Amino acid sequence: MTVNLLQIEEFLCNLALKKVGPIIKSKSGTQKNYNLKTGSKKVDIVTVIDKQVEKLIWETLRSEYPNFEFVGEESYIPGETKVTDAPTFIVDPIDGTTNFVHDFPFSCTSMGLTIDKIPVVGVIYNPHLDLIISSSKGNGVRVNGELFDYKSKIANMGELILNKSVVALQPGSAREGPNFITKMKTYTNLLSCDGGFVHGFRNLGSSAMTLAYIALGYLDSYWDGGCYSWDVCAGWCILKETGGIIVGANPGEWEIGVENRSYFAIRGTTDDTHQDKKEYIKKFWQCVEGKLDYN
Amino acid sequence: MTVNLLQIEEFLCNLALKKVGPIIKSKSGTQKNYNLKTGSKKVDIVTVIDKQVEKLIWETLRSEYPNFEFVGEESYIPGETKVTDAPTFIVDPIDGTTNFVHDFPFSCTSMGLTIDKIPVVGVIYNPHLDLIISSSKGNGVRVNGELFDYKSKIANMGELILNKSVVALQPGSAREGPNFITKMKTYTNLLSCDGGFVHGFRNLGSSAMTLAYIALGYLDSYWDGGCYSWDVCAGWCILKETGGIIVGANPGEWEIGVENRSYFAIRGTTDDTHQDKKEYIKKFWQCVEGKLDYN
Repeated sequence: MTVNLLQIEEFLCNLALKKVGPIIKSKSGTQKNYNLKTGSKKVDIVTVIDKQVEKLIWETLRSEYPNFEFVGEESYIPGETKVTDAPTFIVDPIDGTTNFVHDFPFSCTSMGLTIDKIPVVGVIYNPHLDLIISSSKGNGVRVNGELFDYKSKIANMGELILNKSVVALQPGSAREGPNFITKMKTYTNLLSCDGGFVHGFRNLGSSAMTLAYIALGYLDSYWDGGCYSWDVCAGWCILKETGGIIVGANPGEWEIGVENRSYFAIRGTTDDTHQDKKEYIKKFWQCVEGKLDYN
Repeated sequence: MTVNLLQIEEFLCNLALKKVGPIIKSKSGTQKNYNLKTGSKKVDIVTVIDKQVEKLIWETLRSEYPNFEFVGEESYIPGETKVTDAPTFIVDPIDGTTNFVHDFPFSCTSMGLTIDKIPVVGVIYNPHLDLIISSSKGNGVRVNGELFDYKSKIANMGELILNKSVVALQPGSAREGPNFITKMKTYTNLLSCDGGFVHGFRNLGSSAMTLAYIALGYLDSYWDGGCYSWDVCAGWCILKETGGIIVGANPGEWEIGVENRSYFAIRGTTDDTHQDKKEYIKKFWQCVEGKLDYN
């Protein structure tokens, strides 16, 4: 099968801009009736709009790319749905559902494609900011259709150093048990003057927007657990095209796949050998107290 | 002295849009040489641009309003500078200096006016989003010059309930001692399923943008300590004009002034008696572990 990645990127951009984005924008903050997907100790919100939008995306993609696989947040079946080596669209119809319910302007659609389980196309569209970031493997990154000069941006950002960095952190929906405790202790260690002593952390409530913001050079890194492939697939492709990398959230997890459930994303730098990123990662991992485990 | 608040609001909007905003936007992410204002255990960043912009604002305001007092972040002298009953401009030339240094697109200028120590004019301009929010006492709120229909927004937001709310939290620059510990413990209590169990928290790294976002109905509340009058003055006026209130960060602090150093801001609701907000505040205060104290 010959796959034209740039053509797929353009197709997804059109779908995001013309069909999905307008729904997200018009329905943001209107969904007072939502369900909690999981148990009573998680705030995992889903609305009817999430499901409608996923159906729209799925039907559109199935019609245009009938031989491609599809993994979506709302149709995912735990233990059954798996990403294979086949070309697979991995889609979060509305990333940042809490933002969407509360009209915080950082909900977006996030659509990616993997081949051999590697993200090779990524499109993230935030209709509130009217900001679309897209990429495909080897073709660079486009911001609102214009090629993004990430090399100039990275050169201007200077060295990547833990205690001069701004880190994205999200507690997520699970609010008890070892993973929650690991997150809160690690946040404290990262901030403390006796620990990572980072310049600050930010929380936008959307993994996709966060990865896009790292690719654009607005943030240095993003550490999280509990996410799924659809939260990171599109952003992963975009970030990689700007020289960034993603490893695991726990010490020693240098090689991970899109289904790892915990992730640590680092921005691009001028060092193509990634040596500076590796030093950064090792120092960051020293602040991780406990282990994020979603098996 | 007769003071035309709407005229002052317009004057500050022009100053923000034409003079201050363009500097913030063009210099964002360019300041690799910055100083830490305070001791080695705080990340309190200041750049030469902060000082230049404050001078520009101060000179412009002094020329137009020679009889008004002026309090600015960069010219503030601890223990000496006090807000009096006189008309006083309270200005943060660049709110979110860490954002400004890192080019995270939530730095802004924040300019307020107090009379009798009460915020009566507020202008917040974020040039990255090209978003200006302004208000003056009794005159409502304008977003990019258009009157903001906050009553419709509030009516659509539904009830204000702690475990359905999204809260803004910022650890700030002080990273040791009782205040830091109080913040981290309180964050955990707010998130935990056995505590406040809020829908989520957000951190934009700018008090002014956060207060503006609450006024616009994007967030429910904002709890912080370590801020100064210039961080909250403009946002306080804007929030109040949309029916919101600000109390202290610690239990029982129902009445505070702009120089309180710790703040808890709550969005407007349809309940003009504020009874629902009081219930929300009392439940929130139960999650505060320790006391924020900046004296």
